[in-house]
This record gives sequence, C-alpha cells and structure tokens, in this order.
Amino acid sequence: MSSRLNNIYSQLKQRGLDGLLVSLPANISYLTEFLSRDSFLLVSEKENIYFTDSRYTEEAKANLGGKIKLKKCNGSVFKWIAETSLALGLKKLGFEERHLAFAEFTKIKEHTNGCLELIPIHSLIEDKRQVKDAQEIKKIKQATQITALAFEYIKKFLVCGVREIEVAAEFERFIRYHGCSASAFDIIVASGPNSSQPHHLSGQRKLKNNELVLIDLGVNYQGYKSDLTRVLFLGKIMVLVRKVYDIVRRAQELAIKRVRPGAEMAAIDKVAREYIASKGYAGYFTHNLGHGLGLEVHEDPHISSNEASAVKPGMVFTIEPGIYLPGKFGIRIEDMILVTNRGCEVLSGAIN
Amino acid sequence: MSSRLNNIYSQLKQRGLDGLLVSLPANISYLTEFLSRDSFLLVSEKENIYFTDSRYTEEAKANLGGKIKLKKCNGSVFKWIAETSLALGLKKLGFEERHLAFAEFTKIKEHTNGCLELIPIHSLIEDKRQVKDAQEIKKIKQATQITALAFEYIKKFLVCGVREIEVAAEFERFIRYHGCSASAFDIIVASGPNSSQPHHLSGQRKLKNNELVLIDLGVNYQGYKSDLTRVLFLGKIMVLVRKVYDIVRRAQELAIKRVRPGAEMAAIDKVAREYIASKGYAGYFTHNLGHGLGLEVHEDPHISSNEASAVKPGMVFTIEPGIYLPGKFGIRIEDMILVTNRGCEVLSGAIN
Repeated sequence: MSSRLNNIYSQLKQRGLDGLLVSLPANISYLTEFLSRDSFLLVSEKENIYFTDSRYTEEAKANLGGKIKLKKCNGSVFKWIAETSLALGLKKLGFEERHLAFAEFTKIKEHTNGCLELIPIHSLIEDKRQVKDAQEIKKIKQATQITALAFEYIKKFLVCGVREIEVAAEFERFIRYHGCSASAFDIIVASGPNSSQPHHLSGQRKLKNNELVLIDLGVNYQGYKSDLTRVLFLGKIMVLVRKVYDIVRRAQELAIKRVRPGAEMAAIDKVAREYIASKGYAGYFTHNLGHGLGLEVHEDPHISSNEASAVKPGMVFTIEPGIYLPGKFGIRIEDMILVTNRGCEVLSGAIN
Repeated sequence: MSSRLNNIYSQLKQRGLDGLLVSLPANISYLTEFLSRDSFLLVSEKENIYFTDSRYTEEAKANLGGKIKLKKCNGSVFKWIAETSLALGLKKLGFEERHLAFAEFTKIKEHTNGCLELIPIHSLIEDKRQVKDAQEIKKIKQATQITALAFEYIKKFLVCGVREIEVAAEFERFIRYHGCSASAFDIIVASGPNSSQPHHLSGQRKLKNNELVLIDLGVNYQGYKSDLTRVLFLGKIMVLVRKVYDIVRRAQELAIKRVRPGAEMAAIDKVAREYIASKGYAGYFTHNLGHGLGLEVHEDPHISSNEASAVKPGMVFTIEPGIYLPGKFGIRIEDMILVTNRGCEVLSGAIN
C-alpha cells in the first residue's frame, strides 16, 4: 500500500497539488488494498483520510492500514471533506473530474470559503492502474481460471428449450461456489438473432437447435475482474455463420500476434479491423477491439483506433473483435491478454 | 410514456428551461419505459433525442416509442449533445447535477460556444418517481412476491457448515428461474458476528449452530426492485438476541402504524428511533429508518430524521430499523410499504 500511496504523492508534487480527493471506488480500493464502498479518500503527504458512514466503519477499521485514518461522517460528507482539507492547511486539492458529480463538486466548493482551490484531475490513478503488479496479476489469473471452469460447467445446460436467463442463473450460482463474490457484469447469453446485439440482456428466449449462442461472462474475484466471450453451437452450423466465425477468429489471431511492449494500440486495433474489412464486413465490427480490465471490468487502456499510446509489460486487456449482422446473428470472440516483457500471454488460452 | 414526458415539459416551462439533459439511467428508463443503458436523453418540446452507441442501437430501435428519436453517436457523445441542442435552438438546458460528472459537464460546455446556458437541476424526475403509478406498483409487487418465494427456497440451505456466499449463490440462481434479470444489489448473508455490519459482504464464513443469520435480499424484476431483510436462527436463540430482536420488531410495528398520507417522514423515523432509545439502544440504530425504491433500490424519499416532507399515496419505501452491537451481532427487519389512500399496505407482509 505504501508504495502506491508514495507514488501518488510524487505525482501530486509534480502537478503542484498538495492533496487529492479520490472518489472512484476502484481507485480507493487500489490505494487502500481493501474493497471499499460508499467512501471517499483524501490523500496528502500530511495525512490520508478515509471518509465513510456508520454502515461501513466496522469493516473499514478492520481493513485500513496504519497510514490511513478513518473518519466516520454523519451528515454531509462533502462538508467534512472541505473542512478536513482546510484544517490540514491544504491549498490546492485535486479531484477526479470523471468521478465527482457536478453537485458534489459544488457542495465541496461551498464549504471551502474560497480558501481551497479545487483542481480537476483526469486519470492520475487510472494511469497507474494500467500496469498490474504481481499480486494483481495473480488475482486476475485466478478470476480467469474460475471463468474457464464456469464455461465448462454451463455447457451442459446449453440444450434446446433452456432459456437464456437460466444459463445465466447456473453461471451465477457456480461462480459463488468457486470463490467469487459476484459476476463482473450482467452476463450475456444471446441466442440466435439476439447475438447481433453486442450487449444483449439475457432474457426469456429459449435456445433452439441449429442456432448459435453467444456467451459473454465475467467474474469478480477478490475485486479483480474477468471478461471472456465464446460462441457455441447447437446442432448444425449455417455456412454463413461458419464463415463469419472464421473471419472473427482470424482477426483475433492477427491482433494478438501484434501485442508486445511498444506496439501502438491503434495499430493492434487496425490489424483486426482491416482484416474484417478485407473480407467485406467493414461496417459490422462496430466497437473497439478491446479494453483494459482489473479492479474494473472496463478500464484504461482502450484498444481503439484513436489510441496512439503504446502497450507496456504488465498491462491486461481484452482482444474481442466482432461482426454483427442485425436481425441475423453476431459473432464475438473475446480473450484476456497479459503483456509480458517480450510479447504476450493469452490468459484465457485454455478455453476453447 | 407521453404523460410522463408531458409532465416534464410543464416542469421545464415553470423553471424557464427549454430542455433537459437526462443522464441517470433510472430517469431515462422512467421516461422511455424501456430499460435503457449507457445512454443520454435530451428532452424538449421541440424534439426528444436518445443518444447511444452501436452496442445498443438495435435494442433502442425496437423499444423507443415514436416520440423519441434515436441518435447513434460515434466519438464523443458530449459533442453530439451540445451540437444537437444548438441545432434545436435551445437556449437554457437543464442538466441533472447529481448525475453528470464534472468532466462531462465541462465537455458539453466546451462545445456550446457560449450559446447555450447549462442550468443545474437537482431532482426533477426523481421527485416525480416518488409516487408510483399502477403499472409500477404491479411490477414492484411482483418483485416482492418473487423475493418472498426466494426466502422460502433458501431457508433449506441455512444449515451448519454452509458458507454465506453459498446461500447467496442459491438465491442468485433461484430468482433468474423466476423471471428476474438480476439481484437488486450484492445480497447480504451475514452470519453470527458479521451481522453487526449493516452492509456486510457475503463471504466464506460458515453458518454455525446457535447463531443468527441476517439476510438482506432484493431482486430486479423488469427494472423494478425489492429489498427485504430477515433474521433467522440456527438452533438456540441467546437471551440478548431475542430481546434485541423483539425491540427491533416492535420499533418497526410502531413506525408502520404511523404511515399514512400526510404523515411527516421525520415523525415516522422518530417513533422507531425513540422506542429503540427508550430500551437503551440509542447509539446502536445507526442508519435511516427507510428509503424509497422502484427503478432504483435506493431512491427518494428517505425516511430520516431530517426529512420534513410528508408521505403521499403511491409512495413505496422500506421500513427497516436495526440495532447493531459491534463484534457481537446485529438485528435488522426490513419490509416494503406501499402508501394507500387511507394508510398503508405492507407489500412483504406474507413473509415471516
């Protein structure tokens, strides 16, 4: 914990700030190394203070390290934050502009009496979180492993007549018996034509013979997330489906081959996108190629055509090309990639 | 849908606004009557526009009524929102100050070229949502009914040696086989001393004989939520536990008796709080007495000591007094109340 906090102190100094108000739960969890909820964290070299209410104080007491003080707030937490900052003598307080509501900003400002400058910060901690340490990678690997087991387990429920939501039900049960606290998102079981919606809500539709089912699963294991997609088939596979599947699979292979330290993210996206376009499906791959994951299921970096930055060792992200034919079907194949010193490791490689 | 939108138009006129940007998903779902995700809704008498991206356009096309146009956004949705507002000739655009991040506000502002005034709005749609219509009450009743069934079902898993998270697992499976899309929150199974944390995270602890288990469950049924808490016992009940349980139960009864149109919310909170204090547990009831629920599991109104407003027919909220003895145990009993024309109905009354 100390090294993560020390790292933030030096970032603050560089930006001329003497404190940072952290409001994104994943960022607070990253700095406290405990799965915090409904809280705010004030970070400064003078003192670090964790603000929460009576529902969470017992949990926080047991988990906060010695470097972070607990402040139980009755009434408006924003008044407490402003007053505490002033009492510490802070002059320039950074805040997470993407994770503080306009009204929350206004409330803090109201209580500062003009004695504290509030400076918007875009993604200081998120940038640090892009590169995972050994402990984080261990948890992500475990999350991936449980997801792989869950895929094997739910395959037996993929028979004609079973509803999409029932497959989700069995998954939700299985992962909790295997050490996960929850799924990472509303998991997607999209049968037949429903698969053409990239983020279909699993519903009452029954699986049918000679149709595909697209399944997008993720778990929450000790705060760390997984995210994997596979397309499975009941009975015969239509020629067009097979063709599109092979294109997506090949696009994914080509992209994964490009992943190594120094590779530009846009270039990784491009190789998959251009291959899909070359096969005549340019307009049907409608989202980014991938996204980082860790304490959040979608986090930086984004493997997109706009992202000029380069891949670094320790990054974990998805590679998930897709082709969606509205009203017909969709194919997406999603794996989780860990960038190594020389290339990459497909964490979900064991799943087929 | 039309009457909900028309209602908003007249509210906007009263406030001198010619449009409102809606960003809270539950508020968008309320106005569109479809379970929208990752979207923004611009409401104005001239035109209503739903902004989303390619992952959701097929779903949105199928569900948006004729009064709302779909705008698929590539790139920054905030630029689109600003440009669309200008193109419509809007001059004063309200935004939901509690549900728009500071950075999002800034981005929209950047693209307005000073030609559009952005006015913070606190809870216009939330206020409307406090009173439920017949269709909403029907869904909430159904959610409650399924939760009651789930309670009955999981009772058989409450035996010595079963882990908290395993009880959660069976609940998560059951509700999806009974028409729910998900749980309403990370459900709480808190055994023995864990029950003294009001929002305990269900974990690996095993249920033991002669201990209590506090279970706080909720489901998501067609977008509408339920939220119920019961304390159950394995084997013998300690004298102190029984005593505290009876105090909480009585506090709840007294509060429920006060619920009728016109009753002040603070007065309802007070009757439970004073009863608990009179029994010597003043410092141990550490949260509000209750909260509204509907499209969100926690929404306005809040039944708290600060809330001077009065109860209205059609409101649905919880009544959930609790006593928490840190390190020992906690008792909370939570029911869902519908305010009727003459008094109230305990929606979860069938569960014991």
